[in-house]
Formats: sequence, structure tokens, C-alpha cells
Amino acid sequence: NLLETPEGLEMGGELRTITILTSDLRGFTSLSERLSAQEGPQKVVSILNIYLEAMAETITSYQGTIDEFMGDGILVLFGAPTQREDDPERAVACAVAMQLAMKGVNQQIAELGLPDLEMGIGINTGEVVVGNIGSQKRTKYGVVGSQVNLTYRIESYTIGGQILISQSTLDRVRDITHTNGEQQVSPKGVKEPITIYSVSGIDGNYNLALSQEKETFVVLRETVP
Amino acid sequence: NLLETPEGLEMGGELRTITILTSDLRGFTSLSERLSAQEGPQKVVSILNIYLEAMAETITSYQGTIDEFMGDGILVLFGAPTQREDDPERAVACAVAMQLAMKGVNQQIAELGLPDLEMGIGINTGEVVVGNIGSQKRTKYGVVGSQVNLTYRIESYTIGGQILISQSTLDRVRDITHTNGEQQVSPKGVKEPITIYSVSGIDGNYNLALSQEKETFVVLRETVP
Repeated sequence: NLLETPEGLEMGGELRTITILTSDLRGFTSLSERLSAQEGPQKVVSILNIYLEAMAETITSYQGTIDEFMGDGILVLFGAPTQREDDPERAVACAVAMQLAMKGVNQQIAELGLPDLEMGIGINTGEVVVGNIGSQKRTKYGVVGSQVNLTYRIESYTIGGQILISQSTLDRVRDITHTNGEQQVSPKGVKEPITIYSVSGIDGNYNLALSQEKETFVVLRETVP
Repeated sequence: NLLETPEGLEMGGELRTITILTSDLRGFTSLSERLSAQEGPQKVVSILNIYLEAMAETITSYQGTIDEFMGDGILVLFGAPTQREDDPERAVACAVAMQLAMKGVNQQIAELGLPDLEMGIGINTGEVVVGNIGSQKRTKYGVVGSQVNLTYRIESYTIGGQILISQSTLDRVRDITHTNGEQQVSPKGVKEPITIYSVSGIDGNYNLALSQEKETFVVLRETVP
């Protein structure tokens, strides 16, 4: 994929509208410290790697670009380096598939006698600067801009099993995406409150739905101060 | 360095007391969006790379392990993968050297006709799980634990030019480190308020001091609600 846009990459800096997906395991830091004390630090890394392996496989199958693993967090780009018309819908479908893949992850983790993991996902579409960022010895394709920060903020409102998307993403996937809740939130660094939407499934070529069981946990129209 | 502890790495998970340094450019996201609009996205990547190149050079010379570049943010480990007795003091000395290196960075950036960058640095010492984290195709040596999160929180209290360190780091470098201020803060995820200290210089083999000009900007004993 990197070879598809060699000039763009060498130029080192381009403005792009992309769809950004961030995920993390809700409550994992405190879980990891309990596990480390009770079962040993190897167990922490084992379950993290079971989770990241499954997520990487799912993300790759939806042609997402994994930009970063940070502990239990993942930053994924749809639309960079390669831009496709269906970037936003692939991102939403990928998120649903990631949540569904947690079932298999938790089965593997249960076999180790360890408790379930719960993941939250935030998705947002907006303009960012993409390019090769870093030092001579350590360059990577990365993104900069407030839309990246906003995606992390949106993700921070999730509970386990939830997918929250911004208005700008919803506008691009509305025809095929099912939502089952919305919230007004005021993320740090954003002037006006914004509305974010909880995704329950996606039709089109994807035909994926979160289980009913999960949906009942979705918080509806709660205003975060 | 990776070869020094091959067993530890293969085991994939070890509890370690390390000193963690995080830095970022204060206000860079909004600056980057103004720059992108006025001067083009290439300029954003250019100044980011000038900054990261200089910082990578400084960090390497203090034997810090660069774990991550995230946009304008840097995560550095002292004590992993290789542990040394002087990890905490090398981290503090590295931070002072990084702030001093910003002068050269800003000279290069001024030559491009662009405004000064200001960096904040947080440092903390604590127990974390280290190991090879990721998927089969994409593994990296990384860290997990609340002490990593706490370091980011400490950094978030900095203003440009400032270095803030936790009590646990200060306790290990007290004999040679000069501070010129302290704050009580209540970071998210921490039960009791903690005290953080503003570093103005370090003696010992390092003999580095921030300029007086910077020190006058340091906020003393401000309580963050």
C-alpha cells in the first residue's frame, strides 16, 4: 500500500480527509495491575497479545492501516496512505467486526482462567495532515491534527462493547448504518457540544450487527457535563 | 541494547521499576492547523521532523529508549530494556538537555519564517509491565501500567519550557537536582492529590541548567482543582 502513493509520502505532508478509528480496553490498566500482582506480568502481556492479534487480523481484513499500538490502545486510519471511496463505511464495519471478534478473544482468555475484556471504539471523519513523521533513524507514516484528538475523546465516552461515531462519520454512512442511541457531549478542546451516535450494526455488503445483549447496555441520550 | 536481555524479551512480560519521560509541544495541534491552512501541510511535517530529529539525538545520547512518537508526543523509557543504576538521573538530565536543544530547533524553524515551538516534559518513576506487545506481524517492546498514564498526566500540567517530575523521581535524584517550584495536583485516576516538582537544573556529571528566562515562567505552588 505504501507504494501506491510514493510522491505523497516523499513530500512528507498532505492534507487528507480520512476516517480515524481508535479502540481500547475499558478498565484495562487497573485490571492489568491486579493480574500482574496475582498471576504475574507474563499473563498481562499474554492477554494483551491475544487481543491485539485478533484485532490486527480484523483490521487488516477491512483494509485499515494500523498506525499505532499503545499498550491496549489501537489507532487505525481509513483513507491513508491509500484513499478509497468507502473509507467511512469500511471503518464502521471494521468496528462492528472488532466487537464481534471479542467473543473469540474472551474464549481464549477464559481458557487461561482470566476475566473477560471489554473494548470501546470511537470513530470520526475529518481533515488531518498525514506524512512521514519522525527522525532520520525512526520515521513512520503518521497523522497530526485536532480530528485525531477528537477521536480519542469520542472513544473515552464509550462503555465496554460500544462503538461511538461522530456526526461527520454518520453523515457518510447513514444509508446503511443502524444506531441505537445518541449523546450530547462537550469534549475538551471543542467549543460547542457535539452529538455522538452509538452504532448497533451495518447493512450493505457487510451485514453485521452487535448482539442484542450488548445493545441493552447502551446509554441513551445521556448528557455528559 | 535489545540483545542484552534476550530471555526477558522472549518471555514477554516482566515487572520493572523504570523512569518514564513523556514530552509534547504545548499548543501544537492548533498551531499545526493554522500552519497547514496558511503555509501548507508540508510545513507542519517539516517543523515536526526538525523537532523530532533534535530530540531523538538528545535522547539517544542519554541512553533513553524511544518507545513511541505520536504526532508531536514522545514516550521515552529509562530502565527498559536495559536497566542501569542511574536511570532516574539520566532521565532528568535528558529532559534538561532536551529543553536546551529547543533553542537550536527554534533557530532552524525561524529560518523557515515560522513561530517558536514550546515543549513540556513529564517524568515519573514506578513499576510497570514491560514486554513485547502486539500481533505476530507487528510486535514492539512496550510498557503497560498506571504509572505510564500518570506520567502523561504530569506532563499535561506543564507549560512550555517546563519539566515536571513526580515525588518518586525526585526521591531518586534529590542530591543533584535543582527544583524551583512545586504544585499539588489531582490527576484523573489517582485517589489522593500528589505533589509534582519543577526542575531547573541538574549537577553531578551533567551540570545542566535551564536559562533564567525560562524559570521566570514557572508557575509556583498553584493548586489545580
